[in-house]
Amino acid sequence: MRFVYAFLLLFLLRISAFANDGYKLWLQYYPIENPSYWQTSTLKNYQIIGTSETIDIIKTELETAAAGLISKINPSVKNQKNTSNALLIAKYQDLNLNEIPKEQISQLGNEGYAIFLHNKSKQTVVTANSDIGLLYGTFRLLQMIQVGKIIPKEGIFQTPKINHRVLNHWDNLDRTVERGYAGFSIWNWHRLPRHIDQQYHDYARANASIGINGTVLTNVNANSLVLTPAYLEKVKALADVFRPYGIKVYLTARFSSPIEIGKLPTADPLDEDVQAWWKDKAKEIYEYIPDFGGFVVKADSEGQPGPHNYKRTQADGANMLAEALEPYGGIVMWRAFVYSEHTPDDRHKQAYNEFKPLDGKFKENVIIQVKNGAIDFQPREPFHPMFGAMPATPLMMEFQITQEYLGHDTHLAFLAPLFEEVLKEDTFREGAGSQIAKVIDGTLHNHKLTAMAGVANIGSDRNWTGHHFHQANWYTYGKMAWDPYLNSAEIAEEWLKLTFTSDKNFVEPIQNMMLASREMVVNYMTPLGLHHIMAESHHYGPGPWVTGGRRADWTATYYHQASETGIGFDRTKTGSNALEQYAEPIQKLWGDVETIPEEHLLWFHHLPWSHKLQNGKSLWDNIAIHYQKGVDEAKANVKLWETMQGKIDHERFAHVHSFLKIQAEEAIWWKDACLAYFSQFSKLPLPDGVENPAHDLEYYKSIKPRHVPGI
Amino acid sequence: MRFVYAFLLLFLLRISAFANDGYKLWLQYYPIENPSYWQTSTLKNYQIIGTSETIDIIKTELETAAAGLISKINPSVKNQKNTSNALLIAKYQDLNLNEIPKEQISQLGNEGYAIFLHNKSKQTVVTANSDIGLLYGTFRLLQMIQVGKIIPKEGIFQTPKINHRVLNHWDNLDRTVERGYAGFSIWNWHRLPRHIDQQYHDYARANASIGINGTVLTNVNANSLVLTPAYLEKVKALADVFRPYGIKVYLTARFSSPIEIGKLPTADPLDEDVQAWWKDKAKEIYEYIPDFGGFVVKADSEGQPGPHNYKRTQADGANMLAEALEPYGGIVMWRAFVYSEHTPDDRHKQAYNEFKPLDGKFKENVIIQVKNGAIDFQPREPFHPMFGAMPATPLMMEFQITQEYLGHDTHLAFLAPLFEEVLKEDTFREGAGSQIAKVIDGTLHNHKLTAMAGVANIGSDRNWTGHHFHQANWYTYGKMAWDPYLNSAEIAEEWLKLTFTSDKNFVEPIQNMMLASREMVVNYMTPLGLHHIMAESHHYGPGPWVTGGRRADWTATYYHQASETGIGFDRTKTGSNALEQYAEPIQKLWGDVETIPEEHLLWFHHLPWSHKLQNGKSLWDNIAIHYQKGVDEAKANVKLWETMQGKIDHERFAHVHSFLKIQAEEAIWWKDACLAYFSQFSKLPLPDGVENPAHDLEYYKSIKPRHVPGI
Repeated sequence: MRFVYAFLLLFLLRISAFANDGYKLWLQYYPIENPSYWQTSTLKNYQIIGTSETIDIIKTELETAAAGLISKINPSVKNQKNTSNALLIAKYQDLNLNEIPKEQISQLGNEGYAIFLHNKSKQTVVTANSDIGLLYGTFRLLQMIQVGKIIPKEGIFQTPKINHRVLNHWDNLDRTVERGYAGFSIWNWHRLPRHIDQQYHDYARANASIGINGTVLTNVNANSLVLTPAYLEKVKALADVFRPYGIKVYLTARFSSPIEIGKLPTADPLDEDVQAWWKDKAKEIYEYIPDFGGFVVKADSEGQPGPHNYKRTQADGANMLAEALEPYGGIVMWRAFVYSEHTPDDRHKQAYNEFKPLDGKFKENVIIQVKNGAIDFQPREPFHPMFGAMPATPLMMEFQITQEYLGHDTHLAFLAPLFEEVLKEDTFREGAGSQIAKVIDGTLHNHKLTAMAGVANIGSDRNWTGHHFHQANWYTYGKMAWDPYLNSAEIAEEWLKLTFTSDKNFVEPIQNMMLASREMVVNYMTPLGLHHIMAESHHYGPGPWVTGGRRADWTATYYHQASETGIGFDRTKTGSNALEQYAEPIQKLWGDVETIPEEHLLWFHHLPWSHKLQNGKSLWDNIAIHYQKGVDEAKANVKLWETMQGKIDHERFAHVHSFLKIQAEEAIWWKDACLAYFSQFSKLPLPDGVENPAHDLEYYKSIKPRHVPGI
Repeated sequence: MRFVYAFLLLFLLRISAFANDGYKLWLQYYPIENPSYWQTSTLKNYQIIGTSETIDIIKTELETAAAGLISKINPSVKNQKNTSNALLIAKYQDLNLNEIPKEQISQLGNEGYAIFLHNKSKQTVVTANSDIGLLYGTFRLLQMIQVGKIIPKEGIFQTPKINHRVLNHWDNLDRTVERGYAGFSIWNWHRLPRHIDQQYHDYARANASIGINGTVLTNVNANSLVLTPAYLEKVKALADVFRPYGIKVYLTARFSSPIEIGKLPTADPLDEDVQAWWKDKAKEIYEYIPDFGGFVVKADSEGQPGPHNYKRTQADGANMLAEALEPYGGIVMWRAFVYSEHTPDDRHKQAYNEFKPLDGKFKENVIIQVKNGAIDFQPREPFHPMFGAMPATPLMMEFQITQEYLGHDTHLAFLAPLFEEVLKEDTFREGAGSQIAKVIDGTLHNHKLTAMAGVANIGSDRNWTGHHFHQANWYTYGKMAWDPYLNSAEIAEEWLKLTFTSDKNFVEPIQNMMLASREMVVNYMTPLGLHHIMAESHHYGPGPWVTGGRRADWTATYYHQASETGIGFDRTKTGSNALEQYAEPIQKLWGDVETIPEEHLLWFHHLPWSHKLQNGKSLWDNIAIHYQKGVDEAKANVKLWETMQGKIDHERFAHVHSFLKIQAEEAIWWKDACLAYFSQFSKLPLPDGVENPAHDLEYYKSIKPRHVPGI
């Protein structure tokens, strides 16, 4: 018999290995090698109390997990006589347990959960105050079983630190995705509402498994058509699918909608007809979707209409929408990404200048959505100066999961270190220890309305995200939106084990590769504080030569300021003085070329090519060495990955392999193009160990890829 | 032990049932219920002689099939001592068999295969003259094993009746698909050539399994960019994937390419520089792809450039390209779909008028690609009058697999009966028995260059084709391109058994549903010879009111000619006399309202509403009854399908269910809109049993769907 089971396991592995297209994400539930009695009995012998769609989802999840994680014919359990169920899943109100004090449970709130071993009954218990809490707890338990973690003696008590954990889909109604590199939109608007695709369920399930509880279905560059009845019916259909997974639906509200679909002559937020129109529209939406989450708005930016068109403030605009949503509990996520080519000031400064004076002027159900940095999702940016600077206004974080500036679909860049770096930055706004995570989770300024947004990297590709490893960025976003204090290394390890294998000969080296990958991208794209030097429009590949055109603030030369005298954007007092938007200790630290972290050097300082850095070498040599380092690492990753063959399924192995090879090629492209460009100003030779560009500058400038996705 | 195996099988079924997204098409290889000794031993005990990429593919296919079709631990075989292999796959030259005469094998040609039971060795033998023949034979054998067919005593000797069996992808370089309803293009041009997606292999494998041996990668509304080196590298990468599956790559050649990418001042086919440019281009292409198949050209039609721009003939254009391809064995598939709004003649007649005088004027490597009917892939068209009318020129068939006019993605319309109907039509050009199949397979006029094209319905949807049942149309196309004499019922049965289950309680009723489905669509869209009355531009839904605009020949009123006096397009001598383009017996039969098959009635005749049909009822009553019949059937299909729950996996069941419901709703939409429209002219009440439209005509005219896919 033993032989048969071993054979069977091999056989199952073989089939599942035959074609793994990655669709199952981190919910692979591959067989556990030597399941413990606890693992097996928990999965085979459980009781779930309650009835709801969410409870049904929990049941199905346990069945699916059990079918994958353990062999059903494992005889060691089969012959065991259990007097009670090994796993009990029930809301606290349905339990009869005296060991866990009620206060501890009530602190879990509506979304938290507890997992613990009950001393008396020896059962594993998952409990919560709501079915959604139970669902979150179940996913957590299954993740622990898969990766082989055990429940600590004191139990697990988890409650999300941020209330609104939302994905932002920059998806258009024609299914193109702005800055989307994994195919097209998964929302098939044409077939909705009549066809509910299985993928909508799978999407909601994946999000619930990592704690995401909201989704903005449409692009911030918005189309008012989505607010018409024909589309609201479709939105309702999606909301109905997502609800039992604890996910609310949000929409982007185009500010000019009252004109475009309401046939009003104006969209002035102080106009009574306009206000009434939005109130009616909100009422209508809530008739379709009683738990509609609210609006996300991009106004007065990059061609989008907004209150500026009527000489009103961002607060006027946001508050009008907030008032319309307020009766139903909806919120407005108003983006701070406001800047204009007509404002003769450093783009870095414009959002702060616009919003800081409005602190305290927003209604209670408005939250300002601030990108992590002041420019636009660069591989590295200093944190946005608005964080911590508006104590009377809730601010939320907007991260970009899709890799607009980090190599699109094919470049491995594990974003957890980027998110972690930003969240751990100290704003010093309430003295030392005023980390951004505390701004975001509301603790610094005592706000109850808290949120985080992640611009989704999800598309119609069979593996959802293009690069298999970009699934990790979706995963990370969910985990960090739940708890912005998590660390990257743990997330990477957990994701790898859930997604591929627990084999430490795979997990350890690949975890290291992931953790180093974002810095590698910074090195071969924008080292030492360089930024916004990518190709124009599609942002694919290097473009340090981009200049002129309609908007200076969309060129590369505006940002790198390279000339024979040096390179870098002077944002100190001698320059744009964007630095003054930060707290005093930051101003001091970053204002001095000797104390600013070198990673931000050229973001704030314009320096001669010969300027010496801490390693005693010149700025030029350091730039070149960073580029080379990025390239060397990208090449080394290919070699490392090749040693992983056979440790995971062939399909995903081969897919990642070709993407890593593309990344290594494009790292060289970046290095060569940037060094060829900058060397015309530095007029200095490349230091030892840095390879010369393979072609001249004209060659790199002549590369004009066509039909690049994502625009 | 027996219990364990039964349990195991259930377990496997359960897992595979959990999530079947249809990606595996007709290659499901689900477990055979009670495998015979022959089935099991054949799959477990085989020998393959030879070494090539194609041979490797055969090996993998057998492994995959065996893993799915039979339980590896079946003890009945395990204990059997076989002295020789049960299955032998080898080229004839590598066999040492005296039972099959050499002549019988040599007749198989380069793509045919033989499968037989060898009397002496008791082996099942698959043999052929080429590795590709072996691959085709292997797929056939596996299909037989899955559906439980046995090898007839006399063996199977199969050779394709048509040489070039090609899919036409109307895929654009930005991944949109013209008239594509299953998502976007599966060609990820941006990632090519550096990333070879698994899906390209899976595509080639699926095609090889049904005998398709060519693929035109790009839209007939062509972009010359695909002929530039950057794209030829990408095309080469696909060709390299497809080659071992026996599939050649073709491209669409934009006639104005010499101007657009060659910087010549003209594309005149008689200009020497232009001719030289195409020769150089062909040479360049063959350097990338030594077995490049050739060009498909849409010229002088719907805005495409062509020889007319230079007052040259279609033969001048085609021959220029043919001359360029000739040294390398390439062919030109020149489309006959040429018509112009500036030609003051019935669109039906224009292609014939253009091409018939050119008969015999084309070079030997040119074949004229003719749509099945003279208008444009309507739910039913009389066959194209060019078939049989150009004895000195090879003609190929162009079928449209994608359902531009048959309900797009959501309407079930099994197209085998449409294809079969056309292929069996008698052109009478060489007397009775001059079926179109004989024109196409070259036997009627003794042509060696033979081909069939199918406009693909393949996209990025997880199940490839949008509707699960539209996979059957891809399947049918492959089978009928191999053998245009096949019958629809057998294809439907085989496809159902391969794709879903062999359970006859499912197969029999659903086979009937499939076989009736195309006539159902004709009924609720365009009964009795009505045609081209769909909505404009996107062609989604009814649009009998479409009139005016840029081109009369793109309106509905041009085609139905409805007025108070009657309805129908007079194509007899009293009208456009398109009938004269057919052979005498057809002219006679169809020219007479009493003898013309009623299915073509209004295609050729304009008749008063009161005209009596064979059933004694008026034309108006018959129109209405046909519409109602289509609706009733669409509704009945939903009910029938609901009784199938549990007979197949839930995911595909639910998907098909919602699509059938959409179809029933849209059948009503078609009926109601068309009857509301036509009744304003007939001024007659609806006969008993026909439901009144739910809304007035203005309502139907006001439906303006946005962002309809496929344009």
